Amino acid sequence: MPIEQQPPLDALVAACHWIGTKGWCPATGGNMSVRLSGQHCLITESGHDKGSISAEHFLTVNLQSGEVDGGRIPSAETGLHTLVYSLFPTVGAILHTHSVNATVLSRVEKSNAVILEGYEMQKSLGGQRSHLDRVIIPIFDNSQDIPALASRVADSHATVPLQYGFLVRGHGLYCWGRDVKEARRHLEGLEFLFQCELQLRLLEAK
Amino acid sequence: MPIEQQPPLDALVAACHWIGTKGWCPATGGNMSVRLSGQHCLITESGHDKGSISAEHFLTVNLQSGEVDGGRIPSAETGLHTLVYSLFPTVGAILHTHSVNATVLSRVEKSNAVILEGYEMQKSLGGQRSHLDRVIIPIFDNSQDIPALASRVADSHATVPLQYGFLVRGHGLYCWGRDVKEARRHLEGLEFLFQCELQLRLLEAK
Amino acid sequence: MPIEQQPPLDALVAACHWIGTKGWCPATGGNMSVRLSGQHCLITESGHDKGSISAEHFLTVNLQSGEVDGGRIPSAETGLHTLVYSLFPTVGAILHTHSVNATVLSRVEKSNAVILEGYEMQKSLGGQRSHLDRVIIPIFDNSQDIPALASRVADSHATVPLQYGFLVRGHGLYCWGRDVKEARRHLEGLEFLFQCELQLRLLEAK
Amino acid sequence: MPIEQQPPLDALVAACHWIGTKGWCPATGGNMSVRLSGQHCLITESGHDKGSISAEHFLTVNLQSGEVDGGRIPSAETGLHTLVYSLFPTVGAILHTHSVNATVLSRVEKSNAVILEGYEMQKSLGGQRSHLDRVIIPIFDNSQDIPALASRVADSHATVPLQYGFLVRGHGLYCWGRDVKEARRHLEGLEFLFQCELQLRLLEAK
Repeated sequence: MPIEQQPPLDALVAACHWIGTKGWCPATGGNMSVRLSGQHCLITESGHDKGSISAEHFLTVNLQSGEVDGGRIPSAETGLHTLVYSLFPTVGAILHTHSVNATVLSRVEKSNAVILEGYEMQKSLGGQRSHLDRVIIPIFDNSQDIPALASRVADSHATVPLQYGFLVRGHGLYCWGRDVKEARRHLEGLEFLFQCELQLRLLEAK
Repeated sequence: MPIEQQPPLDALVAACHWIGTKGWCPATGGNMSVRLSGQHCLITESGHDKGSISAEHFLTVNLQSGEVDGGRIPSAETGLHTLVYSLFPTVGAILHTHSVNATVLSRVEKSNAVILEGYEMQKSLGGQRSHLDRVIIPIFDNSQDIPALASRVADSHATVPLQYGFLVRGHGLYCWGRDVKEARRHLEGLEFLFQCELQLRLLEAK
Repeated sequence: MPIEQQPPLDALVAACHWIGTKGWCPATGGNMSVRLSGQHCLITESGHDKGSISAEHFLTVNLQSGEVDGGRIPSAETGLHTLVYSLFPTVGAILHTHSVNATVLSRVEKSNAVILEGYEMQKSLGGQRSHLDRVIIPIFDNSQDIPALASRVADSHATVPLQYGFLVRGHGLYCWGRDVKEARRHLEGLEFLFQCELQLRLLEAK
Repeated sequence: MPIEQQPPLDALVAACHWIGTKGWCPATGGNMSVRLSGQHCLITESGHDKGSISAEHFLTVNLQSGEVDGGRIPSAETGLHTLVYSLFPTVGAILHTHSVNATVLSRVEKSNAVILEGYEMQKSLGGQRSHLDRVIIPIFDNSQDIPALASRVADSHATVPLQYGFLVRGHGLYCWGRDVKEARRHLEGLEFLFQCELQLRLLEAK
């Protein structure tokens, strides 16, 4: 079935399996979600290998309360998903991955953003039209206090709007799209750009 | 079926799937074509993942007008495909890919060409007989103005003839062959040589 | 069948196949074991490719004598497995792999430990709660005299307790868990962290 | 069927497919052979992709004349295979591959040998018992004149006997074993060691 016609959960399960194949969520790390409505999203339950996850390992989360209906509490990082859904009513899917490239680049870059420039593949990000423009991916210092981290992300967005995603230092990438298909393209494009950027820095001893 | 006996579109679809497996066209990037006659080629429609593309996602383009018969307009980069077909009547297939190695090498090398020398695998390119010869792969600065880029490629070719392909800086590789089979061999050989060249530069801190 | 419900040998065979796919045990290297009881474990017989190993290629070893019941003698490195089972009554599975990253990192790091700090993925290791903590993975110089190496490991453990695993310099990683599932997660997490650490050292020219 | 019981050609075809999966023979490069008797070997015909080669793409070569019975002439590099079979009556299979690591390491190392030392995986090579020993893999400058190259290899062997294989600079690896199974293990072990050695040189800026 073409991805556009898949039910959202099926599309998200397929995205998890693809992410597993890519090695971007080793050792049960990461979490993925899809919006069901203005009030709810589905999100991966903690502790499952993304490459072999199935439909019963997703929880329905209330976007206002951040809780699973019925009172079960999802993983702490759910708070970053619900933040992004509340900031962007048009976002339909969020992918949070732990790749080597995202982990290392977010540590090597000591400032608060990775700036991507001069790459044709910037155009894989919705709305980008030229390699001459600059794509800014913010980096936030990691924290185990997710509400505090979410608050820093929200504050930063109020000044410089987020676009496609952000990095958490030494941790990984959050990225999103209108639907699972666009979120996958953004993830694949950003991972490509991160790998290029690391290679370029190595070769140019920057 | 042996690749030599495949209908051209079948061979091109198989090449796209293989390129998808290699990771040389992430996030729906790249485009691939095969010549049908002196007047027409088939080319990938924009926006499809190459690893899972199927026969209905190809457009028939008029090599003179650069348009799809009936008036649909294919992706802008079609102009580089039609240029190559017009420069080389014997070219039967063109592969345009976006690999990390092609992207990075074309930025690290600041001159207008990558020169490959001393590699046995240069002989994977049609007509090359010795590692002692030099293979010159031109690099053109990227542009979103494809007619202007095509014009620079044509001008360069008038002075120093193109042979197997060229790089667009920070963008990717265009390469070709008599048929899909030879274009695949050239792509695989060039990608191998680009990876060797990057590794060698890293190790020799060139 | 969910991995938690697999018989231990089935889970271990599946782990070997997965390790083969990852390329962490090339050329028949490495050995893997699972505890059967307080007295016995099953361990891979030497000389088999881990990626295609099957259930008949495992030996039942007596944890006290280190011998196969009936007198057959398993590979020399069995002594490190039996040591770990005797040090940790709760350990249920041990994976010993030979990856490029573990081999190289254990040589590049000249001290007696790799210290991992600042990585979210440290939390893939049982009991770790924050990227701000330090995970210490000891490195022991390699030896062909396994009883002597086991004695050095035991002495070190008496001073600084082992937690998840240790490296043998220029050789590979030993890691473990309560069961095969946790040992796999520890292996995948440590391999990820080793790859990040190598990349980071390259980029920071440490 | 266990590899030990496979007919030699079946084992060699399986080895070619495995090498294709590893990416060690891109763009139809490389050639592989197996001894049939004191007088003949089977060798891959030039120009086929090793990952999808089948039994009809092998030629029977006379080890004395270097010719195919009936007068067909196999690829020029057959002369290096027949040399190795004549130098070592116990060699049953030869694998000649073109990997990035073998190509780059043989260029980065300017002397006439790669010396491997301190790696447990040296024991993947028949007869090696300790990481403290040194494994010497000679490097010969590449040449398109195969009889001349074969003569240099034979002269070198007369002084310092070859053991497992040799590198041709900027070209690739020749390695061998008693049978296809041992040749595969030697190839996998040497490729692992070459990758470690390149990583180590990068990290130690040697």
